[in-house]
Amino acid sequence: MTEVNKQIQLAKRPKGLPTMEDFRFVEGSIPRACEGEVVIRTLYLSVDPYMRGRMNDEKSYIAPFQLDEVITGGVIGEVVESRSTQFKQGDVVSGMLGWQQFSVAHENELRKLSPELAPVTTALGILGMPGLTAYFGLLEIGKPQEGETVVVSGAAGAVGSIVGQIAKIKGARVVGIAGSDEKISYLLDELGFDAAINYKTETSVKRALQHSCPDGVDVYFDNVGGEVSDAVMPLLNRFARIPLCGAISSYNAAGKDIGPRIQPYLVKNSVLMQGFIVANYQDRFTEGIKELATWLREGKLTYEETITEGFENIPDAFLGLFEGKNLGKQLVKVAEAKYAIL
Amino acid sequence: MTEVNKQIQLAKRPKGLPTMEDFRFVEGSIPRACEGEVVIRTLYLSVDPYMRGRMNDEKSYIAPFQLDEVITGGVIGEVVESRSTQFKQGDVVSGMLGWQQFSVAHENELRKLSPELAPVTTALGILGMPGLTAYFGLLEIGKPQEGETVVVSGAAGAVGSIVGQIAKIKGARVVGIAGSDEKISYLLDELGFDAAINYKTETSVKRALQHSCPDGVDVYFDNVGGEVSDAVMPLLNRFARIPLCGAISSYNAAGKDIGPRIQPYLVKNSVLMQGFIVANYQDRFTEGIKELATWLREGKLTYEETITEGFENIPDAFLGLFEGKNLGKQLVKVAEAKYAIL
Repeated sequence: MTEVNKQIQLAKRPKGLPTMEDFRFVEGSIPRACEGEVVIRTLYLSVDPYMRGRMNDEKSYIAPFQLDEVITGGVIGEVVESRSTQFKQGDVVSGMLGWQQFSVAHENELRKLSPELAPVTTALGILGMPGLTAYFGLLEIGKPQEGETVVVSGAAGAVGSIVGQIAKIKGARVVGIAGSDEKISYLLDELGFDAAINYKTETSVKRALQHSCPDGVDVYFDNVGGEVSDAVMPLLNRFARIPLCGAISSYNAAGKDIGPRIQPYLVKNSVLMQGFIVANYQDRFTEGIKELATWLREGKLTYEETITEGFENIPDAFLGLFEGKNLGKQLVKVAEAKYAIL
Repeated sequence: MTEVNKQIQLAKRPKGLPTMEDFRFVEGSIPRACEGEVVIRTLYLSVDPYMRGRMNDEKSYIAPFQLDEVITGGVIGEVVESRSTQFKQGDVVSGMLGWQQFSVAHENELRKLSPELAPVTTALGILGMPGLTAYFGLLEIGKPQEGETVVVSGAAGAVGSIVGQIAKIKGARVVGIAGSDEKISYLLDELGFDAAINYKTETSVKRALQHSCPDGVDVYFDNVGGEVSDAVMPLLNRFARIPLCGAISSYNAAGKDIGPRIQPYLVKNSVLMQGFIVANYQDRFTEGIKELATWLREGKLTYEETITEGFENIPDAFLGLFEGKNLGKQLVKVAEAKYAIL
């Protein structure tokens, strides 16, 4: 076991797009477990767009990160020391831990994974927060009906790629919006989307959408906000539903996120727009994971991961989210397992 | 009976704010009733903000007005000739008729009013479309709970003034936003609002709202859109609800309605925003009118009307809506009843 515990703290609150100066690498000591706790070696960790919001000092659904403290997020790790009767050395667990090589956590904060049932990284992706976000947002708010048109923005990302596939399972026509030709091919060729629009190369996203959605838009699952969403508004059908999952295009806008007001479109067609976070459905996570795992096993769902290697590349991987570098779920691989068999 | 039937047609589709040139006064003949129909003398007619939308040639929840045809809207009139077994001369009726002195309508298109139960003009206001809009929008979408803070824009208008009063009945704290000192006094002194903000004279509506809503905003009943709504967004509480009833500030904006994007606020606090029109609740109108009439009788609801006199003043009364000239429901009185006893 190494003698130090590399960690990343939030050094400054970013203005606009974060830079490397907002993060600070430090070396702490390896924590010890008290009664009921375990020490975990980080194997993979998750970087997610929502973390940008926690870097601001403002009231939100989740407390802001504290300055000069280790940044927290989803982690998959192996138990290296246990003082819990529920976990033993070599168990693979997931939990909300930190951007650090070793964490200590109480047994109640951890979920044990079964590497023999599914690759452990799925616990941070399709069978974790992004999968559940797609599942509940689409089915509880979007409620796609057979034959309806579902548009997904951020369609090749961790959430969007699952949204589109679930919409297909439900018999909808699915149109994805994404930002590279590689992503467009992925949506059309791998995921079976009915149409896909590259918002970075189309001269008019609105016209491309009109072309791809001849019957209008019944569900718009919105991960990005901004100009992409502006283009969808005029195409909404009567009683359309908009699960509002994220607004990644706004997260770094620093107060200058201006566009056409959308209220007239929503009034005109009795449109529902519902902001949500996955935690709103916490008491139904077991149900969601069960259904997602079934679809995965049956080959009805597939997923992609972008895995960056190396602890020191965590900030880069995080910043890459805002440039749309990732296909599917963005992870960072921090270490090889020593005790666990993956 | 006069020999002519004065009528107002839509002459042009307005660009931005309508002007007198968009309307054309013509003289038609007085219609005759066929079997099952009645002829109605217009006594009062309703001018409403939503009619501006019908003057555009675009897809919406209701068909656009046709050029060179009589503009249609809510009317209260007396039956002057009947070939229906359901109506007799002197009955007072309401229906979607026209900006004209005489209309013919099938018996199925009309509702008979009982002048002895409530003033007939209430059929165009508190016991009609505006009352039902307030009732269903607030209770079915806003769902105010006791002790919550409800903010209403366009608070002194036909819909807003009823929204605020129903919210008070439900035990909420009510803050109204309106555009004149007379309206502010009306909200505070006559309707018992807890606070009221004059958006035309406040230097910062946002700061005034912060002051009036120390616990944030749980329900925002939006009649106006635009900058007033922009100011409410940062104050929304977790799981806040926004019944989106209208966006009068946008109706004449002619494509230049730009402001801060609202999606980040809705995501952050899991806010529901639901556009609606009263017709969505059509199968429950009887229930709504019954409850509104009960509250009215019990003195729990009160209402105000702004009545403009004279057929030739209809366009003026309509245009005045966009300047916020009306307190409560804006009506035009077109004629005295000759057969009916009001």
